[in-house]
Amino acid sequence: MPFVRIDALRADTARLDALGRAVHDALVETIGIPPGDLFQVLTAHDGTHSLMRYGDFPDTRRDDDLVYISITLRSGRTPDRKRALYRRIAELAHSYTGTEPRNVLVFLTENELIDWSFSDGVAHYAPAQDD
Amino acid sequence: MPFVRIDALRADTARLDALGRAVHDALVETIGIPPGDLFQVLTAHDGTHSLMRYGDFPDTRRDDDLVYISITLRSGRTPDRKRALYRRIAELAHSYTGTEPRNVLVFLTENELIDWSFSDGVAHYAPAQDD
Amino acid sequence: MPFVRIDALRADTARLDALGRAVHDALVETIGIPPGDLFQVLTAHDGTHSLMRYGDFPDTRRDDDLVYISITLRSGRTPDRKRALYRRIAELAHSYTGTEPRNVLVFLTENELIDWSFSDGVAHYAPAQDD
Repeated sequence: MPFVRIDALRADTARLDALGRAVHDALVETIGIPPGDLFQVLTAHDGTHSLMRYGDFPDTRRDDDLVYISITLRSGRTPDRKRALYRRIAELAHSYTGTEPRNVLVFLTENELIDWSFSDGVAHYAPAQDD
Repeated sequence: MPFVRIDALRADTARLDALGRAVHDALVETIGIPPGDLFQVLTAHDGTHSLMRYGDFPDTRRDDDLVYISITLRSGRTPDRKRALYRRIAELAHSYTGTEPRNVLVFLTENELIDWSFSDGVAHYAPAQDD
Repeated sequence: MPFVRIDALRADTARLDALGRAVHDALVETIGIPPGDLFQVLTAHDGTHSLMRYGDFPDTRRDDDLVYISITLRSGRTPDRKRALYRRIAELAHSYTGTEPRNVLVFLTENELIDWSFSDGVAHYAPAQDD
């Protein structure tokens, strides 16, 4: 169920792919999603027609290796699970791609069980009686 | 008010356009938005600089015809309306573009009336007294 | 903390950049974020491989100068602050880029303090005891 968007500057296919694996493996390990529960859009921005802008909040030196990771998931994960997720994403992004943890930003947006249809026009987590 | 992002792999303009019409017509029919309430970003990913990754959760065989549909809308739609929306999107995506229902993923993110400004710097659903 | 996505049709780098500055300056002025709290993805759509579609809701004449601005931020801003934000974005987008206010759509999605990791695998707003 998590839907993930990953944005990076001038990344090649191999780097995008490895970033995607880092995030997915971290999700499986820390919040227990099934391995097949993988839905990602990964975009390399060229710096001309599409840009990434960044500052130094909260006192972090970033550079163009920056990665933005946006995860939409149903509500209900505990703060501890979320902290474990952030830590593991940063570790695996470094391990799989060499991206330094200072360059990894992650944020979550939550919705509810009724807000997902994985296929076939069905609300899988909250089906109607006759589905 | 719904804001819609549609992502597809190597789609041409005609397919993107038809997918957009499928989602919009389904929104108009099932949750009653005005026909002019249309705000979409539609992206064809080339598979090199921008990618889509997918698994088989929850036991669905997907392929590169996959479409991700992300809809942001104000809170308050009932579960039945949301189910009707998913069903109709899958039907119309198939009817307009031949996309098989197994390849159509939809998810919703809700916000509130104050969270929308359609134009002119005004919060249309929750204006100030002097707007 | 706000994470911002800006979408525009056939914009050059200078226009994208100026739109980004308009949104960021408005955020700093109206909701008091630190100047270094800047995280944006800005995309120019070519109209062929990536599209923007729009209607006239709620009785607004738009054209291809249209800009979509999506802002994710933690919950808790008052309605008045949000109204001030919309107004200032429209003003500065016009001032910096000539974009007419009728062509500026803004929407907000809120999450919580625990939902942000700015870097280093840490939940900066809700750290664990030992972080």
